[in-house]
Amino acid sequence: MAQYQVLAFDVFGTVVDWRASIAREVDALGLPVAGERFADAWRAGYAPAMQRVRSGELPWTRIDALHRMILDTLLAQFRIELPEPARRELNLAWHRLDPWPDSIAGLTRLKQRFTIVTMSNGNLRLLTAMAKRAGLPWDCILSAEVFRHYKPDPETYLGVCDVFEIEPSQMLMVAAHKSDLLAARDCGCATAFVERPLEFGPDHPRDLAPDPRIDWHAKDLIDLARQLGC
Amino acid sequence: MAQYQVLAFDVFGTVVDWRASIAREVDALGLPVAGERFADAWRAGYAPAMQRVRSGELPWTRIDALHRMILDTLLAQFRIELPEPARRELNLAWHRLDPWPDSIAGLTRLKQRFTIVTMSNGNLRLLTAMAKRAGLPWDCILSAEVFRHYKPDPETYLGVCDVFEIEPSQMLMVAAHKSDLLAARDCGCATAFVERPLEFGPDHPRDLAPDPRIDWHAKDLIDLARQLGC
Repeated sequence: MAQYQVLAFDVFGTVVDWRASIAREVDALGLPVAGERFADAWRAGYAPAMQRVRSGELPWTRIDALHRMILDTLLAQFRIELPEPARRELNLAWHRLDPWPDSIAGLTRLKQRFTIVTMSNGNLRLLTAMAKRAGLPWDCILSAEVFRHYKPDPETYLGVCDVFEIEPSQMLMVAAHKSDLLAARDCGCATAFVERPLEFGPDHPRDLAPDPRIDWHAKDLIDLARQLGC
Repeated sequence: MAQYQVLAFDVFGTVVDWRASIAREVDALGLPVAGERFADAWRAGYAPAMQRVRSGELPWTRIDALHRMILDTLLAQFRIELPEPARRELNLAWHRLDPWPDSIAGLTRLKQRFTIVTMSNGNLRLLTAMAKRAGLPWDCILSAEVFRHYKPDPETYLGVCDVFEIEPSQMLMVAAHKSDLLAARDCGCATAFVERPLEFGPDHPRDLAPDPRIDWHAKDLIDLARQLGC
């Protein structure tokens, strides 16, 4: 494992709990829809919106703007009136996601031995605000925004390797999503799966089975730090 | 000053003392040239090398590679034989620059109130390694590398504003170099000058006179924090 120069982390779901955080803000606003239901619907629009960028249907568009497009659609679907300033503020809820309980301790341990960076589809402003609020100790914030490609495009994983002038085998991609990891693996990167059984809520259990194609399998980030000798 | 959302910092000379740091590494290697003289010569090649990129003579090239080009030229000029691994390692001396004595305390205070980012011509890998080694508490590391333009191109200052979706007047550029600040000012950014009387050594005193075109004038980063109410 001394071969890893850089650990690159997926963020939404892997490091932070988007569902509970978004639900909390929706509920606090008193919208006439359950916060968790709204959070799930908002998140469900995420991959299709990025796909529109990846396919070229939309020009390069940041996640903040994609989140806002989805939000406007959802508010119309739920027939919720929300004035512009409140919409803008609610959209920034994605800047205020709380870490999973182990995230800061795990990252802090990993940081002692490795360079830890984000490789998230979130935009730089979002990731910076999130890290500042939550105290996430990134060595560097990298984003799809830097590479103008969304994961799982290879330009993202290989872009991190290029920035740090390392071979793909010297980068360990850490995520709670096998599709993300398998795309990194296709680029030659090492991979670490982190179990986040509650990412989509207790009613949507996830496939947490170890996958022989993935190099490491950890319960959480503290467990990953332990396995990597930190 | 509550208007500032983001403080963007020049790094070489403003936050870190490149001259003493490079001289120390050159002297430690026992090269047959005084470390400070070598540091001055290396740094003197910096602006012309970037100018070759800015003019289009060279394609986009990171500072690490420009530093290496200059290093190879200097070693030839000084008729110094240095094997490839030692050259590569010496080139990374720019990743190991020490902060000025006030830098970490000043940045830590400024960070409590503002989002603090780099806007340096150094590449991301260099800035990340430097921050990790020295403990510079950046909220986000931005670089000419992200914008594929070197300062003082307007794409750099305006690029920071674009990333954070702020007006230029909401960004305060902090630097020890008036040319950097005046270029930021031409983009509509606010500006803060930091005195670094010893950047080029005691034999090369610098123009530290307050300039009416520059919004703030500070002795060091602790003084800037004080003036900005941190």
